Amino acid sequence: MGNRDLSNLIKRAYLQSLKGEREGDREEEVEAIRETIKSAKKIVVATNNEKKFKVIKNIISEICDAEIKMIDLDTKVADLSRMPAIAKGLIALDVEDADLYIARGRLGVPGSGSMLVIMDSKGRILTASLSESSAIHKESLERRIEKEVKDALRRVGL
Amino acid sequence: MGNRDLSNLIKRAYLQSLKGEREGDREEEVEAIRETIKSAKKIVVATNNEKKFKVIKNIISEICDAEIKMIDLDTKVADLSRMPAIAKGLIALDVEDADLYIARGRLGVPGSGSMLVIMDSKGRILTASLSESSAIHKESLERRIEKEVKDALRRVGL
Amino acid sequence: MGNRDLSNLIKRAYLQSLKGEREGDREEEVEAIRETIKSAKKIVVATNNEKKFKVIKNIISEICDAEIKMIDLDTKVADLSRMPAIAKGLIALDVEDADLYIARGRLGVPGSGSMLVIMDSKGRILTASLSESSAIHKESLERRIEKEVKDALRRVGL
Amino acid sequence: MGNRDLSNLIKRAYLQSLKGEREGDREEEVEAIRETIKSAKKIVVATNNEKKFKVIKNIISEICDAEIKMIDLDTKVADLSRMPAIAKGLIALDVEDADLYIARGRLGVPGSGSMLVIMDSKGRILTASLSESSAIHKESLERRIEKEVKDALRRVGL
Repeated sequence: MGNRDLSNLIKRAYLQSLKGEREGDREEEVEAIRETIKSAKKIVVATNNEKKFKVIKNIISEICDAEIKMIDLDTKVADLSRMPAIAKGLIALDVEDADLYIARGRLGVPGSGSMLVIMDSKGRILTASLSESSAIHKESLERRIEKEVKDALRRVGL
Repeated sequence: MGNRDLSNLIKRAYLQSLKGEREGDREEEVEAIRETIKSAKKIVVATNNEKKFKVIKNIISEICDAEIKMIDLDTKVADLSRMPAIAKGLIALDVEDADLYIARGRLGVPGSGSMLVIMDSKGRILTASLSESSAIHKESLERRIEKEVKDALRRVGL
Repeated sequence: MGNRDLSNLIKRAYLQSLKGEREGDREEEVEAIRETIKSAKKIVVATNNEKKFKVIKNIISEICDAEIKMIDLDTKVADLSRMPAIAKGLIALDVEDADLYIARGRLGVPGSGSMLVIMDSKGRILTASLSESSAIHKESLERRIEKEVKDALRRVGL
Repeated sequence: MGNRDLSNLIKRAYLQSLKGEREGDREEEVEAIRETIKSAKKIVVATNNEKKFKVIKNIISEICDAEIKMIDLDTKVADLSRMPAIAKGLIALDVEDADLYIARGRLGVPGSGSMLVIMDSKGRILTASLSESSAIHKESLERRIEKEVKDALRRVGL
């Protein structure tokens, strides 16, 4: 699954929307997302927390045969943005060249809980998952992140 | 809960982040989100699908005593954006003045499933929820949206 | 000029676009931007550089009778974003409640020069101006910012 | 000039910002932007107006030896977004794979005038230029766009 196939599918979907003929996601689009994830050769995880990185790496390694690396730059500054998890992913996209970027951070305002997001090489959002605020539900961070990664993958049938 | 209180809480959180002293969401921040939602007097739902609107309105009506209206403008064009659900919310924010905006649309690329998001009067993201692609799980749209609204509220303890 | 009038004008423009009847900016829209700027009562400048603040304050004071304050929070972290000037403005919008926000920062990637942007109380972009990279043209920062503010205002006929 | 060099330069700039050691754009960063533009092999222009396309193509052709194509999809829907010119560029990025994307559209709200923006293969903003609202200054569209392209290039020393 190359960039080109995904771009072509997106173009078709955009054209359908412009004509008013779009009727929700198509199975081949979800398939294209799955293939983009499974065929990744290099993945950058936008965290510099070794524990979080290992949980994510372990689960992703079962799905694809990729070099998975941690970003070597502090992404906490993304917390001063409207969507910190997305902002972390975009920092990773700016400074590293990879097939996939995985970021985890706050969803929105302080108190809004967390988001884990998987982006492709152009920063397009492939899938994501949400957790409620740690102030609401006290689970270990590792277990929480494990759930989030699995949930994000499950949403696209992986 | 006015804008001012929320802005002050956000400022404190941002200052904590800048000092490297931030340790996750605080209970009072989640409480502030709850209060912002419960005290809303006017809510705009960024859909022009009567069915979706009714499901959302019914659930939200139980939580707050607000005028809830549907946007009278087609937001489908938001599908040609990187985050269609967020883009729909921002269209509503641009054209209507309200205390809360609720939008539902695609999360990211075609095939990435859907997102329901609740924004405040400035477009700050208070909470959200995700559903997998309709191509993956075939549930009625009404039931799906009902779950999404409840899930978004539950994430902040409502 | 209240939020409501501007929102109504934007709604009309969006409806024109949806119908394919939009033909560029209208004089009354530019007039609405001017009125929004001139009638501002509180303005937050997203810088914590006293010199830059004074230049901006002096020029803006001639146009509107507003309380103009400097943000008391370091916005340099916005440099790790895709559009640092815009990101600074959004930080100000998140933490302060004002009628206008003025931010100045890098336009895009390092080397892309700077942008000065004026946003309204909802973060909508009213006008802006650009300067080339300081690596290209060596002018004093004060003179540069003075030009930028005047240029942003001139673009909307002020 | 590959993606990799630019990504490395951006990483260094981000690290300087994190350490509080950043002091404005560096000459080598502007040089990297120039090289990215000059070495482009495929460029997509996010317009479907033949006239606008030709003006842009003619000027860009003098700087780089690239295949320059017009997007075959209507990007006018981007007018219902907070930054239409940027949104048009992102639509092009989503549906076509290229080294550079050039988009032109409204800067912000209706009445805010126009922006021309040049993005790289990942959607990073390399340079841009602004024009005042056509409601303010009545020049021919072709001449206006010609100025904008030249201005965007001049800002980075091209």
